[in-house]
Amino acid sequence: MSQDHHEIGLRKLKEIAGENQNKPLSDWKDVAPDMERYIVDFIAGDILSRPGLDPKSRQLVTVAALAALSTAPAELKMHMSGALNLGWTQSEITEALIQIAVFAGFPASLNALSVAKEVFAERSRSNEGTTK
Amino acid sequence: MSQDHHEIGLRKLKEIAGENQNKPLSDWKDVAPDMERYIVDFIAGDILSRPGLDPKSRQLVTVAALAALSTAPAELKMHMSGALNLGWTQSEITEALIQIAVFAGFPASLNALSVAKEVFAERSRSNEGTTK
Amino acid sequence: MSQDHHEIGLRKLKEIAGENQNKPLSDWKDVAPDMERYIVDFIAGDILSRPGLDPKSRQLVTVAALAALSTAPAELKMHMSGALNLGWTQSEITEALIQIAVFAGFPASLNALSVAKEVFAERSRSNEGTTK
Amino acid sequence: MSQDHHEIGLRKLKEIAGENQNKPLSDWKDVAPDMERYIVDFIAGDILSRPGLDPKSRQLVTVAALAALSTAPAELKMHMSGALNLGWTQSEITEALIQIAVFAGFPASLNALSVAKEVFAERSRSNEGTTK
Amino acid sequence: MSQDHHEIGLRKLKEIAGENQNKPLSDWKDVAPDMERYIVDFIAGDILSRPGLDPKSRQLVTVAALAALSTAPAELKMHMSGALNLGWTQSEITEALIQIAVFAGFPASLNALSVAKEVFAERSRSNEGTTK
Amino acid sequence: MSQDHHEIGLRKLKEIAGENQNKPLSDWKDVAPDMERYIVDFIAGDILSRPGLDPKSRQLVTVAALAALSTAPAELKMHMSGALNLGWTQSEITEALIQIAVFAGFPASLNALSVAKEVFAERSRSNEGTTK
Repeated sequence: MSQDHHEIGLRKLKEIAGENQNKPLSDWKDVAPDMERYIVDFIAGDILSRPGLDPKSRQLVTVAALAALSTAPAELKMHMSGALNLGWTQSEITEALIQIAVFAGFPASLNALSVAKEVFAERSRSNEGTTK
Repeated sequence: MSQDHHEIGLRKLKEIAGENQNKPLSDWKDVAPDMERYIVDFIAGDILSRPGLDPKSRQLVTVAALAALSTAPAELKMHMSGALNLGWTQSEITEALIQIAVFAGFPASLNALSVAKEVFAERSRSNEGTTK
Repeated sequence: MSQDHHEIGLRKLKEIAGENQNKPLSDWKDVAPDMERYIVDFIAGDILSRPGLDPKSRQLVTVAALAALSTAPAELKMHMSGALNLGWTQSEITEALIQIAVFAGFPASLNALSVAKEVFAERSRSNEGTTK
Repeated sequence: MSQDHHEIGLRKLKEIAGENQNKPLSDWKDVAPDMERYIVDFIAGDILSRPGLDPKSRQLVTVAALAALSTAPAELKMHMSGALNLGWTQSEITEALIQIAVFAGFPASLNALSVAKEVFAERSRSNEGTTK
Repeated sequence: MSQDHHEIGLRKLKEIAGENQNKPLSDWKDVAPDMERYIVDFIAGDILSRPGLDPKSRQLVTVAALAALSTAPAELKMHMSGALNLGWTQSEITEALIQIAVFAGFPASLNALSVAKEVFAERSRSNEGTTK
Repeated sequence: MSQDHHEIGLRKLKEIAGENQNKPLSDWKDVAPDMERYIVDFIAGDILSRPGLDPKSRQLVTVAALAALSTAPAELKMHMSGALNLGWTQSEITEALIQIAVFAGFPASLNALSVAKEVFAERSRSNEGTTK
């Protein structure tokens, strides 16, 4: 992938993750350093930066998909935080997660709401939260 | 559930499904008639009609969740059509489905894109399609 | 596995599948003949014949698990038929499938209800059905 | 939903959860208070209280579905406890969970058996356990 | 992604898919033409062409993952065919699919074995098959 | 199952799990002692010991399936360790896990890479690790 995608990707990740941008990149980095390149260049720099759908709506797609899958709480947490950073309110995200119950079952929805509770509490503690 | 939710639900389903509104209700109706009540009153009349998130965004949540799950092609088809009815363009939906590849894998994304191809082709034949 | 498990398994499969007992064994048989041995001896002859839970309740566990997974319509069909053979009524099975919506989402439940519609219709045609 | 469903739902939850009835309602309650209403009125007061299948069998459906999904350990724990409260023995539940291995794989079954171990141990400590 | 990855990807796809190489690219191509680029350049040209694991072993990983997921029969078919093209025998693939039953359940394994039956039958008809 | 399968199974488990062979058998053993028999005799002694596919390749199938499912981190850990014991290098396993992202999504891949990091770190501490 091009240098271009790398820089676009880093900017996109900063847009989504804000101050915590290094977090999601650090866990498995020693084991699979190339994964960082795929996340920055391919996911963030190419897919998430595609022009055909606005970034705020894209972030809702991410939150809905991760909540439906119910197997990636750490990433759901990061992307819920990203959804707040991109302009969704806490109550809008909560609504999306309630709706997940219809399609993926109530346990998937409640799993996601527990993650939301954590995200909202951390926001509240650091005074960075988007008000309800 | 109240009569109120029933009427709100019927209206919501019409908003989503347009002319095809009776379709999703007919398949398993003889076997489980109460399911129709749950879909109209609970899903459409209560959850999907909640005020905290706009209907257009809600429909994107539905499409993203169903595409990520990859086990409900018939409902994905109906709700993709609903997404077009609620104002999303074909290319915006396509973008959302491409993004699903990142979180649920490429096969889930390609499954959903095959459904999209059908939906878009039917739209094109009936001249009801939202232009790209 | 012992000859014992093989005979117990064949009897158990006959108990579940009735006249259609050869059907579920025939599809992939040429490719993986040993799978037939595992299904007869291990699944039917050992697990499903364990004494600690009665056969009728076991069959409900099978139907609920397959409906929740939503990826095995052919086996769900065979085991729903088995549930009727073991004494569950059509309406009891329908109730179990409606309940799946709560835990695995409405699409999983509706997928299973469509399978139920087929099973019940075939029963009705062959006059072997358990009356509602 | 009607006041009726609310009261029926509270009674049903008490029947399932016993003394711990407030627990499953408390975790995400601040974030999504309406979810409590859905769980009490819709899940417990409507679906789980439907007359067509006896409560004890319904609880087995719940345990089997949650074990097959393998993504909701906290709810599986609560509903396994509920299954004991509704009359299933520890060894019957264990049998159901062993059977899950056939349909959802051994890891799903072993995940569920680990949850069962916790539930049974807590019962044993509080002297409320159903004897094997 | 670079021109380099595109050419490497086309070669890799030819290695996997043989004469049928255009097939997997044609279905959703009108709807999401960029997906073709991702499949050729990213999946085939970058990931599947990485040097750290030999191509034959990589293909087994693909077949195992798709069989375990049980939601992508079309892709499983193409990649099973690819596994034969890369040197695995029909009976080795069958063994891998039988083993899937342990981890993802017997229905997932039987689904995959049905796909294998199709693949092996097509091979046999076109005399291109790898002998057992 | 025969005494034969039991002894073959114990040997196979030792081959996969090395010094830690008792670990995977101990967790749910009190609750479902027969599960130990199924794991030793059926999984290890029969399926994993089948002659049609070499043990090293079988272990890769296991790792790929468990990583794709993303719901069994404890077993993935044990079987990744087994993959190292059977001759795969840390970087080959890492490559397989990166590839999972294509088929099951990046979160499944990253979940598995986090497990790999643990496994590799434990190896490094005990000086038993296969060098990269």
